[in-house]
Amino acid sequence: MSKRILIIGGVAGGASVAARARRIDEAAEIIMFEKGPHVSFSNCSLPFHLSGIVENGDDLVLMSPEQFRNQYNIEARVSSEVTKIKKEEKKIVVKDMITGKEYEESYDKLVLSPGARPILPKTIEGITGPNVFTVRNVVDIKKLKGYIDENNIEDIAVIGGGFIGVEVAENLRLAGKNISLIEALDQVMSPFDYDMAQILQKEMMDKGVKLILSDGVKKISGDFIELQSGKKVSAKAVVMAIGVSPETSLAKEAGLEIGVTGGIKVDHNYLTNDKDIYAVGDAIEVYNKLTHKPSRLALAGPAQRQARAAADNMYNIHHNNNGVIGSSVVQIFDLGAASTGLNEKSAKAAGISYDFVYIIPGDKVGLMKNSSPMHFKLIYEYPTGRILGAQAIGKGNVDKRIDIIATMITMGGTLEDLKELELCYSPLFGTAKDVVNYAALVALNLLYGKFKQVPVTKVRELVENGEFILDVREAHEYAEGHINNALNIPLSEIRGRLNEIPKDKPVYLHCRSSQRSYNAVMALQNLGYNNVINISGSYLGICCYEYYEDQVTGREKILTEYNFN
Amino acid sequence: MSKRILIIGGVAGGASVAARARRIDEAAEIIMFEKGPHVSFSNCSLPFHLSGIVENGDDLVLMSPEQFRNQYNIEARVSSEVTKIKKEEKKIVVKDMITGKEYEESYDKLVLSPGARPILPKTIEGITGPNVFTVRNVVDIKKLKGYIDENNIEDIAVIGGGFIGVEVAENLRLAGKNISLIEALDQVMSPFDYDMAQILQKEMMDKGVKLILSDGVKKISGDFIELQSGKKVSAKAVVMAIGVSPETSLAKEAGLEIGVTGGIKVDHNYLTNDKDIYAVGDAIEVYNKLTHKPSRLALAGPAQRQARAAADNMYNIHHNNNGVIGSSVVQIFDLGAASTGLNEKSAKAAGISYDFVYIIPGDKVGLMKNSSPMHFKLIYEYPTGRILGAQAIGKGNVDKRIDIIATMITMGGTLEDLKELELCYSPLFGTAKDVVNYAALVALNLLYGKFKQVPVTKVRELVENGEFILDVREAHEYAEGHINNALNIPLSEIRGRLNEIPKDKPVYLHCRSSQRSYNAVMALQNLGYNNVINISGSYLGICCYEYYEDQVTGREKILTEYNFN
Repeated sequence: MSKRILIIGGVAGGASVAARARRIDEAAEIIMFEKGPHVSFSNCSLPFHLSGIVENGDDLVLMSPEQFRNQYNIEARVSSEVTKIKKEEKKIVVKDMITGKEYEESYDKLVLSPGARPILPKTIEGITGPNVFTVRNVVDIKKLKGYIDENNIEDIAVIGGGFIGVEVAENLRLAGKNISLIEALDQVMSPFDYDMAQILQKEMMDKGVKLILSDGVKKISGDFIELQSGKKVSAKAVVMAIGVSPETSLAKEAGLEIGVTGGIKVDHNYLTNDKDIYAVGDAIEVYNKLTHKPSRLALAGPAQRQARAAADNMYNIHHNNNGVIGSSVVQIFDLGAASTGLNEKSAKAAGISYDFVYIIPGDKVGLMKNSSPMHFKLIYEYPTGRILGAQAIGKGNVDKRIDIIATMITMGGTLEDLKELELCYSPLFGTAKDVVNYAALVALNLLYGKFKQVPVTKVRELVENGEFILDVREAHEYAEGHINNALNIPLSEIRGRLNEIPKDKPVYLHCRSSQRSYNAVMALQNLGYNNVINISGSYLGICCYEYYEDQVTGREKILTEYNFN
Repeated sequence: MSKRILIIGGVAGGASVAARARRIDEAAEIIMFEKGPHVSFSNCSLPFHLSGIVENGDDLVLMSPEQFRNQYNIEARVSSEVTKIKKEEKKIVVKDMITGKEYEESYDKLVLSPGARPILPKTIEGITGPNVFTVRNVVDIKKLKGYIDENNIEDIAVIGGGFIGVEVAENLRLAGKNISLIEALDQVMSPFDYDMAQILQKEMMDKGVKLILSDGVKKISGDFIELQSGKKVSAKAVVMAIGVSPETSLAKEAGLEIGVTGGIKVDHNYLTNDKDIYAVGDAIEVYNKLTHKPSRLALAGPAQRQARAAADNMYNIHHNNNGVIGSSVVQIFDLGAASTGLNEKSAKAAGISYDFVYIIPGDKVGLMKNSSPMHFKLIYEYPTGRILGAQAIGKGNVDKRIDIIATMITMGGTLEDLKELELCYSPLFGTAKDVVNYAALVALNLLYGKFKQVPVTKVRELVENGEFILDVREAHEYAEGHINNALNIPLSEIRGRLNEIPKDKPVYLHCRSSQRSYNAVMALQNLGYNNVINISGSYLGICCYEYYEDQVTGREKILTEYNFN
């Protein structure tokens, strides 16, 4: 007898289970139930409707129920809410949202792919107002865009500086709106460490987004919002994007096990604790391959893989479950920002012994007109050199570098492996020694104890403590902006001016991107200096790091000028 | 006592040895000898001077001897030809090209980094004429550009369709010249298989390059060249780029061992058979990690790694020698073309059991305006699924996909590993299931015997033999161009029109990019069809494949029209 497969949720995960099951089994009866009016829309493309990059909101819907029927012989029931799972009877209760009628359907296999919903804290006054929006589906984004357009709204507040908040803020800003982005933490974009997040924050501020960190919303009214700090921000529309919560009420009510992270608990095969019910996508708890701990991950790639694995398991087809590492990329105005694996924060939280390097090489041969610096941070296990994660920010191909690191992590690669990687090179595409090779070389020198470094986050302290800082850039670069009280001796003059460099105290060195300062560090060490320390991140990193702080905190400046060239 | 390190050749390899040795040892005396007037120029950027992408030819020189002196305390003697190695005395003989004087220098360690020189067959009449050029260094490229500019030359022939030939042809075409590109083989760009090379050839022809394959030059005169076939081609300047030959005369004369490939033979540490003489770069013989055979490789990345390893070995610093796989990328007008590892030809030549898939997915989410198809060919070992190589061609980030495969090869990855890779995704950057994931999925289905395929190179034969070909694209796509006599049943109608599909003979299927045809193959197999075969490469591949052949061979067309959309 043919299998009857019911699927709750018809977006990324659900639609993928359905399509895969059909390819395996032409005879199966496959039905998807979706509460909303659309199945299979491009979730990740929603924010781009706000700027007009995706002009027509209806284009966000990738396949209609008719197309599912015709191309795959899959039934997609939209406006159909599943209100109950009767797992002992192997039945679900479905409510037709249009007629209001309830009915039951029986299954051989059930798949939960309900996703996650935006968090809307009831403690915020005005949170249920007509000017408060979330971004979860095509209906949401069209509603938001419609409200802004019809009411000619200029001032908009976006609450939350994660992926969705940042993408919504960017696309609304591209549409010419006045955007305030409010984030409760002291940085946006948590996949990035504090130092790297500064670069993203600078880009948003440069492009006119008003950025408010370490503050939250207390009250929303028609014309403004009031923050926890008491500050008032003009806003006629508010987009809530502080996070998502997995949709687990159906599962809970049915007595399915929920994991420690609040997601639905699944086994190797994405089966819940019921042998006929699978769960996939944003609602489940996944296993992090690097921390060896359960976690949650709202990303489309893993959801698709889980969906395929669940369908395969229904037909006894083997699949691997490697756990997740979390790779992502986002465009923030002119910058791409990509990351994978662990960052400093998550490595610390997981109690993993790590070290890192932060370099800023060119993404292409300098002769090429669109060559530009790439900020690249590599996290590795100490003392093994096993690669744990990376963050890349720049105008060039950040995703390419992070995908290489993601591949390395998956394959258990070390710094020695990364150093030896033979990558594509042409001056139009990169450098003979690619960013990732270069990061491995610097990291190996650090791992093997060839030199010492201090992170860019410590520079203020160095300056305030009156430490000896040596700037080995050329004089004209120094003239355009430098650390207060730093001594300028260009690399080319250093061997002749050793008398100006003290041997009896630490010497902190930097140049623009660390390449020249690294040569200077090695030269001084070879010349008998025992306490030479490179400033990781160098001058470009210091500029980014100080930019937000100086403007917002009003603390005494440690740089004479900013110069990012 | 401090070490005396002499280096013959001051470009990529030589300059890298020098800089690395200096970082390790401040006391060493380091001297580079370069026959030409420049050290450390950007070899790979030379062709871009012809189009003006690099406007000023002098910018191609990255560091002057003065900068080497000041920044690294390295002596760079230009216009200095090393004429002899006296290895028993540990001395070299140097000829000052300006004064003509010869003198000797003694060394503790000697490094040969002489590179490779363009091949100029003496059998070609007129090969020594003033209108015949090669592209090896800054002097060459300025000479070529100067000759073209001063003589207002419009018609130029480029001989050889490898990296240099293609890049020179492209950049001269970008400068508005009439370019004939002549290649002795039946395809350009040997890192690519015949099917993939068709795409590159189409791009060059579309952009106005006259392409002549399977023909060679017999005679060069002032106004034209005469080919082996007797054909005459108008050309007032000729660029010879048929290949390079390693510079081994000094090494041979000194009694250093030469490998079977004609390159200088080196050990794990890049030492020749003399314990104080290293050799690196284009002149040496390397070990191919995949074929397990000696080979030669003229690429900048490996040269830099060899240089670093040689310097390290002088100071007893450990390094790994992983052999080479050969990764490269080139821009050909609007297309990027990247490859790594083995292709079909090299796998066959090495006697390695392999299979491949050729897919054409979108490089980004289709909603994004600059989304475009990427031609991707993945070669893997049969029956192990170990990844051996890949080729990618398209407007999008081909280098990113190939770098992922290069990383996989280096780490010994299989198709199962590639399928599970968790890569960066945003609609602006890619698709949730990336091109490389998708290739692995298709390849695994093939490896596991889930479906059969026929390569695009066999389509003409199928048509000529009157085989049953089913086109599952939509009717409007079929109307714009299709295989002669193919039957059109869109995927959405296939289940209702089974009576039109024969069960008693092979059914060959294709769509545009293989995605719909794959679904149709699975459906038909599940419906009892036992001999269903997918056409690998699908309609887009067929178009590219037939484009050159139809135009050049004049054979009967197998397509009603070309339609690449």
